[in-house]
Amino acid sequence: MNSTKNTIELAAMRSPCPIANTLDIFGDKWTLLVVRDLFAGKSTYGEIQSSPEGIPTNILADRLKRLAAHGIIKKSPYQQNPVRYAYQLTNTGRSLGPILEQIVKWGKKNIAGTEARMMLDL
Amino acid sequence: MNSTKNTIELAAMRSPCPIANTLDIFGDKWTLLVVRDLFAGKSTYGEIQSSPEGIPTNILADRLKRLAAHGIIKKSPYQQNPVRYAYQLTNTGRSLGPILEQIVKWGKKNIAGTEARMMLDL
Repeated sequence: MNSTKNTIELAAMRSPCPIANTLDIFGDKWTLLVVRDLFAGKSTYGEIQSSPEGIPTNILADRLKRLAAHGIIKKSPYQQNPVRYAYQLTNTGRSLGPILEQIVKWGKKNIAGTEARMMLDL
Repeated sequence: MNSTKNTIELAAMRSPCPIANTLDIFGDKWTLLVVRDLFAGKSTYGEIQSSPEGIPTNILADRLKRLAAHGIIKKSPYQQNPVRYAYQLTNTGRSLGPILEQIVKWGKKNIAGTEARMMLDL
């Protein structure tokens, strides 16, 4: 069950539509790839940047910040001096698994040349 | 079953990942809203534009063109002089139903103030 504290509040809503609001968080070419990487067991900035799509560093920093602000991921220090953070999905983030599962299925079936090389723990 | 002719060929691929490639088609704030409207039974340019998010006309024209080029929707004339077109999902487009279903479920559960007002025939 989802408790009230997990509910995401968006500053501006285009409409009450759950699809429109979800796209306001994930509707770009990168955010769900960061989520994918976390489902694949990656957790550090460097690990996520090493993915084959080559996410630009400023975009990765922005997406991690936004995902954390929405409570989809959380960060914790794994090293001091200099401090470095590891990122992981919260329960809200893990509940994106079925969306990714359907996207993988659709992409593999309909787009030529796709193959799922990462093992996702959805 | 999906026949080979339905396979989408993308001109440039960021990686073989089915998620990355699917995002290259749908990874923006509008495309899946157009798909949503078609699942809701809308079929004309004017009907889609009347949705509460107020899609800009140039973006709608672009997305319809791209979705048709990928074989996700097809258009047919419903009026002559001037010719006007109606749009509908192909089988490939209809197979996006489970993705939308999971997005609706996630959005309703996790984003405050969302409600599904449209009846989608997913």
